[in-house]
Amino acid sequence: MERADATLAFMLRYENIAWYENGAVKLLDRRVYPREVRYVTCRTYEEVIAALRDMVTQSAGPYTAAAAAMALAAYQCRNKNEEDQLRFLKEASVAVANARPTTARRMALITDACFCAAKAALQAGEDASDAIMRRLIELNNIRYDKVYRMARYLAAQIPAHGAVMTQCFGETIVGQMCRVLKEEGKGDVRIFCPETRPYFQGARLTATVCRDMGMDVTVITDNMPAAVIKNESIDVFTSAADAICMDGHVINKVGTYQIAIAADYHGIPYYVTGAPDSVHPDVKDVRIEQRDPSFVLQAMGVPTAADGVKGYYPAFDITPPSLVRGVVTDQGIFAPDDLERYFSIPGTDPGELII
Amino acid sequence: MERADATLAFMLRYENIAWYENGAVKLLDRRVYPREVRYVTCRTYEEVIAALRDMVTQSAGPYTAAAAAMALAAYQCRNKNEEDQLRFLKEASVAVANARPTTARRMALITDACFCAAKAALQAGEDASDAIMRRLIELNNIRYDKVYRMARYLAAQIPAHGAVMTQCFGETIVGQMCRVLKEEGKGDVRIFCPETRPYFQGARLTATVCRDMGMDVTVITDNMPAAVIKNESIDVFTSAADAICMDGHVINKVGTYQIAIAADYHGIPYYVTGAPDSVHPDVKDVRIEQRDPSFVLQAMGVPTAADGVKGYYPAFDITPPSLVRGVVTDQGIFAPDDLERYFSIPGTDPGELII
Repeated sequence: MERADATLAFMLRYENIAWYENGAVKLLDRRVYPREVRYVTCRTYEEVIAALRDMVTQSAGPYTAAAAAMALAAYQCRNKNEEDQLRFLKEASVAVANARPTTARRMALITDACFCAAKAALQAGEDASDAIMRRLIELNNIRYDKVYRMARYLAAQIPAHGAVMTQCFGETIVGQMCRVLKEEGKGDVRIFCPETRPYFQGARLTATVCRDMGMDVTVITDNMPAAVIKNESIDVFTSAADAICMDGHVINKVGTYQIAIAADYHGIPYYVTGAPDSVHPDVKDVRIEQRDPSFVLQAMGVPTAADGVKGYYPAFDITPPSLVRGVVTDQGIFAPDDLERYFSIPGTDPGELII
Repeated sequence: MERADATLAFMLRYENIAWYENGAVKLLDRRVYPREVRYVTCRTYEEVIAALRDMVTQSAGPYTAAAAAMALAAYQCRNKNEEDQLRFLKEASVAVANARPTTARRMALITDACFCAAKAALQAGEDASDAIMRRLIELNNIRYDKVYRMARYLAAQIPAHGAVMTQCFGETIVGQMCRVLKEEGKGDVRIFCPETRPYFQGARLTATVCRDMGMDVTVITDNMPAAVIKNESIDVFTSAADAICMDGHVINKVGTYQIAIAADYHGIPYYVTGAPDSVHPDVKDVRIEQRDPSFVLQAMGVPTAADGVKGYYPAFDITPPSLVRGVVTDQGIFAPDDLERYFSIPGTDPGELII
């Protein structure tokens, strides 16, 4: 089975983040990448859920992992009768979607699609796991194509010889942005990646993608964005999102909010990439995941603070529409107050996940 | 020789950061404190300079270390004739002051005072090293007294049951702020300390002082301040400074600027503590130290990014007066545009360092 669009070979390294085969899901352990290339093997979909909670994979990785988990669930129940298989898969789709609270509604789009693919396969007497993985490839190829278009709209906002600041790890869009910048003769654009504590996704993942794409990339610590925006004349701040609410609020890795405030203070735009989320009509309904506070009291596994000191770890923050210059989609750039219009365009689909 | 004001016993742990005795300077290695209590021993003042460049001690520590270095220099040249001793000490005072560029002018206030004390001792036939250490104790006791008064002005801005955000390590003022909050029945004020990458001074030093003072203290990563200001209803953002220019610009550990922007965005005040620096009339003359960029590509000694990724490490940033609600001094709180007035008050001294 082909894993991904060959034209996106440059991203294969990131696409091998999660894969189902022969009764097992293998996940690239992004907690240690790129200093180590190590895989976590899951034998049940419940183990994939645990891995998602343990942050083994991040950014778009969990969505691919969720589909692989559904293929594994289909394998787990293969010897049951069709009715029981469907019940098992339904339960799995709900459980996997809810692995992490903030992204549960987006994840449900994927697990629901997998459930439908499995159901059709079972009714046609085909292998449900194979059907799910074929569906994943279809969905990813549609997504890559749309993210490439998105990257062209984003790159158009970045001036020649300019400088961009990212936040956390935008996965597909980061690679596609670099690709388009090179295609358009803007390969000398400098990219600044805040390291993104406590997991260092910016230092480890985003910076590695940019380097692999041959770009000039600099990691900074998370206390530097405002100073760097000023000192290094950053032109554009951009990030992907864990949710783009229809009311224009952006949910993304904690830190996005304060960089957006700093960008606004310096008069530079913040562009968030991704299709708006029809599943998130209102920011009030978004649950911000609170992770284990003790995790902020270490770095790369080494304790930092003294005993008796508390930690606090909100995984995401909320950036209001007033700080968002535009939502960069595959259909152009939308004002954050005008997101309903996106779904009035032919070719868009409220049930599709484009990140 | 008594080391410090007995009424400040709570801070002795932090005062033992640098001490001269019997031909050696011992420096508490704050790069590993509090997980390890380890000392660096210097046998020449040049070794103290190297230790300052290597960040063995920070915040007010370097000023105490500079005085100890001068006492060591006096020991090094004790067998020369008086003229040669004075020449040696003059050279040492310039070299020690210039250990790090951004704080050179402040450091010169200390090393000049030590030189004068040594000169008077030599002329009176007394031991120059002893004279320097006595002068250090005098200066520190004056400073503690003034910082305590400063802390009372600061604490008056913090509401009962409120919450404060710090940045990096304010050393004396942090301990005194906690002390005054307790004295004034506001011991339940919550303190949030951004960890302060890449050296984690907030996580390691500030949080430890607050804990030792019995306060409720929480460490956050450096990407969280804006979200925490909003979610946890922070009342006041405060920091010390590496320079408070007479034109109202504040030089402090990188990150201060973006927290000040976030504070301003949320309508909460930023109070910087310390006397204005007569030696810094204009921000244009401040040199921002650029440290080894590779240092931001590790955390607690563990590499984070892939090879081929660059780092960038400006040690400090500049916060403009428009983001500073007030400069909290021992003589009250001054508007950042009104700092000349501080030195018109009896009891202030442009040659004195109050941080």
